[in-house]
Amino acid sequence: MVSPTGSTYKLIYFDARGVAEATRFIFAYAKVPFEDFRVPREDWPSLKEETPFGQLPVLEVDGKQIGQSAAFTRLLAKRFNLAGKDDIEQALVDAIVDFQKDIQAAMAIWWREEDKEKQTKLRDKFFRDDLHQYLVILERHLKDTEGSGQFFGAGGPTYADFSIACFFFTILKFYPAILDNFELLKMHVDRVHNLPGIREWVEKRPKTEM
Amino acid sequence: MVSPTGSTYKLIYFDARGVAEATRFIFAYAKVPFEDFRVPREDWPSLKEETPFGQLPVLEVDGKQIGQSAAFTRLLAKRFNLAGKDDIEQALVDAIVDFQKDIQAAMAIWWREEDKEKQTKLRDKFFRDDLHQYLVILERHLKDTEGSGQFFGAGGPTYADFSIACFFFTILKFYPAILDNFELLKMHVDRVHNLPGIREWVEKRPKTEM
Repeated sequence: MVSPTGSTYKLIYFDARGVAEATRFIFAYAKVPFEDFRVPREDWPSLKEETPFGQLPVLEVDGKQIGQSAAFTRLLAKRFNLAGKDDIEQALVDAIVDFQKDIQAAMAIWWREEDKEKQTKLRDKFFRDDLHQYLVILERHLKDTEGSGQFFGAGGPTYADFSIACFFFTILKFYPAILDNFELLKMHVDRVHNLPGIREWVEKRPKTEM
Repeated sequence: MVSPTGSTYKLIYFDARGVAEATRFIFAYAKVPFEDFRVPREDWPSLKEETPFGQLPVLEVDGKQIGQSAAFTRLLAKRFNLAGKDDIEQALVDAIVDFQKDIQAAMAIWWREEDKEKQTKLRDKFFRDDLHQYLVILERHLKDTEGSGQFFGAGGPTYADFSIACFFFTILKFYPAILDNFELLKMHVDRVHNLPGIREWVEKRPKTEM
């Protein structure tokens, strides 16, 4: 579909929110049309080799494939003024997204553990010790912005807000009490999900577990 | 130290190459002065709480602290024309750096394993199966650029080249045979380390294990 920038966008992912949902939020908020292509699980093996990194999601911009969700979400964010108002703010919001990737990497350690007993031990340790430290740091960043805790950047919403809010939206589905002592982060999830364009997208998007 | 952009830069890290070395390569290649501050290990606990993410490295730009090495290295890359020639190429080289972060996250899984026997098993699996797939993909990206395998971006060296080359430089110290079947990647490490400015930096930099 052709956007105001003159480019066509096709987002390729599974039928899930996952790490593609923040990208969909950008399209929704910026009111930019895109093709929301959801690959059936059975088609994935034959498609895998053709993707840039053997992974989904992939974004096609004018037919050119770009892998790694943070990279192409940042590209869109820059095109639609959601990447920070200057290069310093861009670096600060980029850092939030990279920090989120650190959290996800820490979760992957117990997520991929095959020994069930050990997995429970690692998961409990993650939620008891590690996650708390991550949340303290994230909330401090939210509080420290000139936007007084509204968004991670000082100049209004950026793609970092979309990325963090989508991440916690799903975490909260599985662990509803996780943000009970982090009121600013909890309100941030709601604030982002109620932004114009995004609220309408959330109402009409396909209902998926993850 | 004041740079041609009018900003002062202070890079804060341990006495190591690690994830700060690609940033030093940018300063060396762009011939931009910076303060290379190396924190003694014993000073780290008292400093940790004051950093943006409880981690090093941190870059201070005109006194403003920015955390997450990929984020601030990208900022410098944009300032010194090492981030890709247009926004599509920027996204493509950003993706390479994010892919490297995936590789590092996969390594952390065995690196952090406390059970020595299990660690050996996981490490062997990583080097036998996972790393090979990562290298195939990386080499394909190097081959596919218009630069004919010279650099990851088509328009000459970018910060992604510095990041990947520094990463493999250290991996090769510990596992010298790791790139034996990946001649393009091996030559890429040498090519980057012999770029003007970088060659001189590599000769004079502090000698550290990591």
